[in-house]
Amino acid sequence: MSEFKLHCFALSGNSYKVALFLALAQQKWEQVFVDYLNGETRTREWRETVNEQGEAPVLEHQGKKLTQSALILDHLAQVTGKFGPENEEERQEIWRWMLFDNHKFTSYYATLRFMYGLQKSGETPVTQFFRERVRAAYQIVDNHLGKTPFLVGERLTIADLSLAGYVFMPEDTGISKSEFPNIEAWKARIQAMPGWQHPYDLMPGPTSAI
Amino acid sequence: MSEFKLHCFALSGNSYKVALFLALAQQKWEQVFVDYLNGETRTREWRETVNEQGEAPVLEHQGKKLTQSALILDHLAQVTGKFGPENEEERQEIWRWMLFDNHKFTSYYATLRFMYGLQKSGETPVTQFFRERVRAAYQIVDNHLGKTPFLVGERLTIADLSLAGYVFMPEDTGISKSEFPNIEAWKARIQAMPGWQHPYDLMPGPTSAI
Repeated sequence: MSEFKLHCFALSGNSYKVALFLALAQQKWEQVFVDYLNGETRTREWRETVNEQGEAPVLEHQGKKLTQSALILDHLAQVTGKFGPENEEERQEIWRWMLFDNHKFTSYYATLRFMYGLQKSGETPVTQFFRERVRAAYQIVDNHLGKTPFLVGERLTIADLSLAGYVFMPEDTGISKSEFPNIEAWKARIQAMPGWQHPYDLMPGPTSAI
Repeated sequence: MSEFKLHCFALSGNSYKVALFLALAQQKWEQVFVDYLNGETRTREWRETVNEQGEAPVLEHQGKKLTQSALILDHLAQVTGKFGPENEEERQEIWRWMLFDNHKFTSYYATLRFMYGLQKSGETPVTQFFRERVRAAYQIVDNHLGKTPFLVGERLTIADLSLAGYVFMPEDTGISKSEFPNIEAWKARIQAMPGWQHPYDLMPGPTSAI
């Protein structure tokens, strides 16, 4: 029996943040498929027994259920000793980027990709709004990655794993990869690490929404 | 000279999270007005010298600049000994709600309020989209606050201060307060605390956008 059980699904980049940690840290883990597309996370039962916030991922570990990808990454770094901060200054730097990720970098991109790339909404005022926000957030990260190989210094940390949630997702969002060359170079560094797998190979369930 | 210097502006609920901490913790602090409406946070100079992520609040303390409201609250709880977690379980609960706040509760509301309440955009596909997301996030918090007086247990913590960022803002968002009675009761509990002040009384600058 593996120590970690992850409630996840292939389309969920927020789940991928945690799945990729477990893969790169070479941990054994079990999958529990979350049927998000059919509304499982919106049912009363799932909210009462798995996560009242209605979101994947959820990590079961040592009899407890942990939610929020950044908090799960923080926990995994502590218990495995991998990809975490080495001092208080690094801890603050890591959280600074994980928070920016939750508020903007992942959040805006995930919404745009879901509507435009998966639901095939076509161009709407909402997709235009989000694409503009994505570009602003991506530009901030691209500028930062022009100065440093990983988000916090010279090595991969959970900050990188957080921001990597959706960057390998293949769907079209109307944004060209060439707009953010430093992000592309950073992605290549992550992809070259031993154990790296694509989200659709690492997690269960369908890889299209329609 | 006061120990804390906060870069903030009255309309910024993310700044209010920190200003309200300082007020309730009865700390002395200095204000630095951020001229967000005239584009100060988007200038190269501000990004290079104050915050590369282009956001308020920024807290100056002990010669360092801290950004991201949740991380600033975490820091203030540590250095003042107030409103922080008392054990590891509380620490995780606090972060779980602060992350939900950054991703959804504050984020969606702040965007809706800025467009609909401050820019007077009128109803658009984008405001409709955000209002639906706000309602879903508010319902999750309202359900939670039906079971507990504060987000994490029986006392005010930095989780409450994070989610309180925009809830006292007076602008119309097309959502009635009566939809979320448990949030209203929680707001009243916060508002009754010694030292509480309205965001527009606590921070500098204009209180309308047009």
